[in-house]
Amino acid sequence: MRKHPDIPTLAELEELKIGKLESGHKNLISDVPGVTVGHFTYKDGDIQTGITAILPHEGNLFKEKVVAATYVMNGFGKSIGLMQIDELGTLETPILLTNTLSVGRVATGLIQYMLEQNPDIGLTAGSVNPIVGECNDGYINAIRNMAIEESHVRIAIESANESFEQGAVGAGTGMVAFNLKGGIGSASRIVTLDQKRYTLGVLVLTNFGSLSKFTIDGLKTGEAIQEQSERAEQGSMIAVIATDIPLSDRQLKRVLKRIPAGMARTGAYFGTGSGDVFYGFSTAHRINHSSEQALSQMQIIHETRIDSVFQATIEATEAAILNSMRHAETTVGRDERVVKSLKTFL
Amino acid sequence: MRKHPDIPTLAELEELKIGKLESGHKNLISDVPGVTVGHFTYKDGDIQTGITAILPHEGNLFKEKVVAATYVMNGFGKSIGLMQIDELGTLETPILLTNTLSVGRVATGLIQYMLEQNPDIGLTAGSVNPIVGECNDGYINAIRNMAIEESHVRIAIESANESFEQGAVGAGTGMVAFNLKGGIGSASRIVTLDQKRYTLGVLVLTNFGSLSKFTIDGLKTGEAIQEQSERAEQGSMIAVIATDIPLSDRQLKRVLKRIPAGMARTGAYFGTGSGDVFYGFSTAHRINHSSEQALSQMQIIHETRIDSVFQATIEATEAAILNSMRHAETTVGRDERVVKSLKTFL
Amino acid sequence: MRKHPDIPTLAELEELKIGKLESGHKNLISDVPGVTVGHFTYKDGDIQTGITAILPHEGNLFKEKVVAATYVMNGFGKSIGLMQIDELGTLETPILLTNTLSVGRVATGLIQYMLEQNPDIGLTAGSVNPIVGECNDGYINAIRNMAIEESHVRIAIESANESFEQGAVGAGTGMVAFNLKGGIGSASRIVTLDQKRYTLGVLVLTNFGSLSKFTIDGLKTGEAIQEQSERAEQGSMIAVIATDIPLSDRQLKRVLKRIPAGMARTGAYFGTGSGDVFYGFSTAHRINHSSEQALSQMQIIHETRIDSVFQATIEATEAAILNSMRHAETTVGRDERVVKSLKTFL
Amino acid sequence: MRKHPDIPTLAELEELKIGKLESGHKNLISDVPGVTVGHFTYKDGDIQTGITAILPHEGNLFKEKVVAATYVMNGFGKSIGLMQIDELGTLETPILLTNTLSVGRVATGLIQYMLEQNPDIGLTAGSVNPIVGECNDGYINAIRNMAIEESHVRIAIESANESFEQGAVGAGTGMVAFNLKGGIGSASRIVTLDQKRYTLGVLVLTNFGSLSKFTIDGLKTGEAIQEQSERAEQGSMIAVIATDIPLSDRQLKRVLKRIPAGMARTGAYFGTGSGDVFYGFSTAHRINHSSEQALSQMQIIHETRIDSVFQATIEATEAAILNSMRHAETTVGRDERVVKSLKTFL
Repeated sequence: MRKHPDIPTLAELEELKIGKLESGHKNLISDVPGVTVGHFTYKDGDIQTGITAILPHEGNLFKEKVVAATYVMNGFGKSIGLMQIDELGTLETPILLTNTLSVGRVATGLIQYMLEQNPDIGLTAGSVNPIVGECNDGYINAIRNMAIEESHVRIAIESANESFEQGAVGAGTGMVAFNLKGGIGSASRIVTLDQKRYTLGVLVLTNFGSLSKFTIDGLKTGEAIQEQSERAEQGSMIAVIATDIPLSDRQLKRVLKRIPAGMARTGAYFGTGSGDVFYGFSTAHRINHSSEQALSQMQIIHETRIDSVFQATIEATEAAILNSMRHAETTVGRDERVVKSLKTFL
Repeated sequence: MRKHPDIPTLAELEELKIGKLESGHKNLISDVPGVTVGHFTYKDGDIQTGITAILPHEGNLFKEKVVAATYVMNGFGKSIGLMQIDELGTLETPILLTNTLSVGRVATGLIQYMLEQNPDIGLTAGSVNPIVGECNDGYINAIRNMAIEESHVRIAIESANESFEQGAVGAGTGMVAFNLKGGIGSASRIVTLDQKRYTLGVLVLTNFGSLSKFTIDGLKTGEAIQEQSERAEQGSMIAVIATDIPLSDRQLKRVLKRIPAGMARTGAYFGTGSGDVFYGFSTAHRINHSSEQALSQMQIIHETRIDSVFQATIEATEAAILNSMRHAETTVGRDERVVKSLKTFL
Repeated sequence: MRKHPDIPTLAELEELKIGKLESGHKNLISDVPGVTVGHFTYKDGDIQTGITAILPHEGNLFKEKVVAATYVMNGFGKSIGLMQIDELGTLETPILLTNTLSVGRVATGLIQYMLEQNPDIGLTAGSVNPIVGECNDGYINAIRNMAIEESHVRIAIESANESFEQGAVGAGTGMVAFNLKGGIGSASRIVTLDQKRYTLGVLVLTNFGSLSKFTIDGLKTGEAIQEQSERAEQGSMIAVIATDIPLSDRQLKRVLKRIPAGMARTGAYFGTGSGDVFYGFSTAHRINHSSEQALSQMQIIHETRIDSVFQATIEATEAAILNSMRHAETTVGRDERVVKSLKTFL
Repeated sequence: MRKHPDIPTLAELEELKIGKLESGHKNLISDVPGVTVGHFTYKDGDIQTGITAILPHEGNLFKEKVVAATYVMNGFGKSIGLMQIDELGTLETPILLTNTLSVGRVATGLIQYMLEQNPDIGLTAGSVNPIVGECNDGYINAIRNMAIEESHVRIAIESANESFEQGAVGAGTGMVAFNLKGGIGSASRIVTLDQKRYTLGVLVLTNFGSLSKFTIDGLKTGEAIQEQSERAEQGSMIAVIATDIPLSDRQLKRVLKRIPAGMARTGAYFGTGSGDVFYGFSTAHRINHSSEQALSQMQIIHETRIDSVFQATIEATEAAILNSMRHAETTVGRDERVVKSLKTFL
């Protein structure tokens, strides 16, 4: 039985279906064929942090790039790599997520990984554009210790798999959402075009929101939970959209601009201190680093058919945020600070 | 008594308080001192259209400009004047709203009005940047008739007043929101800074949304109303934010980026065919067209205090959208098409 | 013989070859197959103004759109239609150029033209996005008179031809460049990709620059001409790039960002009062207004081959600016003001 | 005597005055009061690289931020920190320049430096946004070796001084401009407003251009120098503008958009592989990290007076590029590759 009309039971939450569209098989970003996710989790007393890696395909991404875009809802953040994606419309490394002060180390580790895979980078093939997103886990992670090392990147990348954990793992280890434990969440939706089924998946790193505004599918759950003291919203969210729908970089950016609508439905108010940064890629094409031919063919979705992609994005974002909280366990971090799991209130 | 748990009564809707912040005296954009709004309403059988004018202050706006910004959530629209606001950060004409195909006529009428007020424009004072936003009212307005004339602009501007009608009036005459009658809505919120009360007001022109997604403060009202047949979301929303809070153009743009969060809370899915375009201005300063002195003083809000402005924006936007629907009466337009008022279902 | 080492003779100017790339057959934007240009010129004492129309192809552009982009170097301008091109990456009307205060009238005339061509607009096919660029010809045109009428648009469009005049014609009738007579100029360059020849053409409307900074292929011609009194740079330039190279909208925007480099080589300093606004389109594909199929094929140039397109853009822009001045005759306008042709100084 | 009419003598180059405006005392970015520059130069056989640091003032920049902006002319680059500057309009760390693959290490070193200076970062004061720009010095630097260490950052910052070297030093050690030796260059110009003298300074890191297009104040010097074999333009330029003129972040961005005009005058063609990224800041105000008062006063330049700031920017950029080449000595790097100094041809 519900404790309160606005507080679902755990069973209800687990069975909650956000929106109208069908989910993918696993309801994960890895429902998009080829996409894998890996974590490096660093939990050791005051250290509660980590790295999450999203790999668009199993090949050499530098040699076979994918179409990509970014969108910055709120730029109070330190994510790197956006500029080149915006200019060239392609992604050439895995997307890594970590804590705010570790972006440099993770970028360096990612460069080292790419150099090993590609002996031509820096000699005949130009440079490489590492992508690293971040949120600030300093509430329960001793972020000043800068515990993440360059070598940890490889661990996250090499653990990438179609199955992966959600919640307080990887980059999500120390994150806080709606004053409850947040972290990594994922969801997917199916979109049918020309009688063929495509998948759109999202992975979020949730670190935003004030408890009193937390909403579960219209229920004012946050208002009904009153145990925890309210703190100001300072947080951020990183989202990664993956899809096998053939979208151009411009279309992907349009898709990413719908992510805040999914956030708003959970109670986001987008405070000034929030770095809400989104990356998207389509695996429909592989774009070679260099090419004998100047011209090549690409498949593109007609703009009039994009609404279902937008809807899939908003639904999957809302679902992924709730998944990040549903999976995150209560965590004790620096100075014995405790961030409770949503589940303790259901 | 409620007809359905998710359908509020009319009395409940009228007393519904969105969010936490105090409303201004009239709960209108004109709670911001100096701001007035005027309508020209053109209702004649197949013609269901009009013009709405928002005036930032009672003075000569070309000579005494206000700080301004724009934000385009979705650019499938024909609004004009955004580019120069983005470049110079100032507004020098009233903001006019009308139907999509009348933007040129309304711009011309506005230019004529400005030329009369300012004999130096085009001679010694350069040109003038007319601001016209639009939505497509073609569902019930015979938009191909292009019934709006240049001379109608003056009627809208000269009727501007602190009190003004909402709903199916002015530019809102023919608009449709969530498959119900939309149009002009407004709301305001109070923000206190350094022990002084400031006002943020919003005016919206609602022409977006699908009934099944319509949400009233978390209630899934649209799903519960099943009389009307669903049409695809094609619509748009124009919003104008006015405030006496001293915001820079960059800060105003940040404020405008929070408007979609207010829309999302009512059920917006931001379909591709939507032109969601937002304008904002602050009346805190007046910037002279020309100046003897190269340097002058401006007051600016510290970035760390802007969260309450964001919250006011999201709350007032959601409230203004609901107000546009609460005030809009059932309207019969071209080809005897009927768009029902929300009130007929409560 | 040269009058001065830095002042070329007229013969030298006529034979001057800007840059390294081969020109198209006519050295005009209409070297791009299908592209035509038409003028409406209005010269009558104090009235010195007009309209220029650029048509991307001979078909119904609303039904068969072309890929397009815009770039705003300096946004002190009133051009309309940019927002939707940025959002959707397509152009669906001819591009019209005129004087600053006539943008509304020309947009309305263009809408009327499109409505006639397309009986479905406003009924089943949504609205239409008119594109109108402008410069301020108020120095010699009595711009406050607003002499341009909606009906003039048709004259410009219907006169469109592969051959067209340059200089003080159409929208260029009253424009001033480097304190000399400017107006319409054009040039083209050939780019070879995969053994096939493609054309990039540019059309400019020049209305910028101070005489003392005017440079012809490195020669400081402006400094050497000292007859005219210097006026502050206030002007603007509109440029339209057309090409049959298969470029995406993102790539077209990159191309447009190189236009200021061509301007800088002629002595542009991009003063604050300048509205430097650029449009570009590729005729390589036609994108249907609606489509049975969700997915279609497009040909795209590999990013590593785009440098020759950039070079063609910079060279053709510089050449087109000089052509606008080389063809413009001395003009007498309002209040007997005289703007001399460059040719009077060679 | 000149070797060729288009090749100035060294004495002529040293006395060359670009543009019309007066230079600052040292003709360096450090003519702006408070601005200092430091280098860490790493020259060791195959290693030819380094770090350059630009400090806006002598105080604690995190606690007393300066107004700032960025502009990306071409985004094929890996510079970090732009997003937050764009969002908040402020700079809170020194600006560091280095080679492409070392951005992560330099960012980490800069974070460590900031953490030491500010014990509250990561605890009560949020995070910090490190700014690192880069060009690819891989032609003569063994960039894959990643020789730059986090600890080198401190050396660059602590060596900052009003006097500093130009040419093949710091981040400029391995850079190549117009196929000749490039690197660090600087220049400044004086702008007078309301009878008071202000300074605008620029520092560039030049790594762009093809020899055949190299132009010195209109002279086609590059064409006249034919000894070196031409390589494709792949390079980049980073520029930093500093000024004590009270400019808003929006105005600073307008200033930065004029930098490409200065580049174009030296022969830049902005190839696709170029990361042309610009940062600007004004020292006129210091913005506290936190504030008791919500509102404060700022001085702002009237938009109509900004043209001299634009002119100063274009002139100083052109001069700084030439200075980078005038000071850079012939350098031998990896695999015995030699990049000659411009001076060897004069």
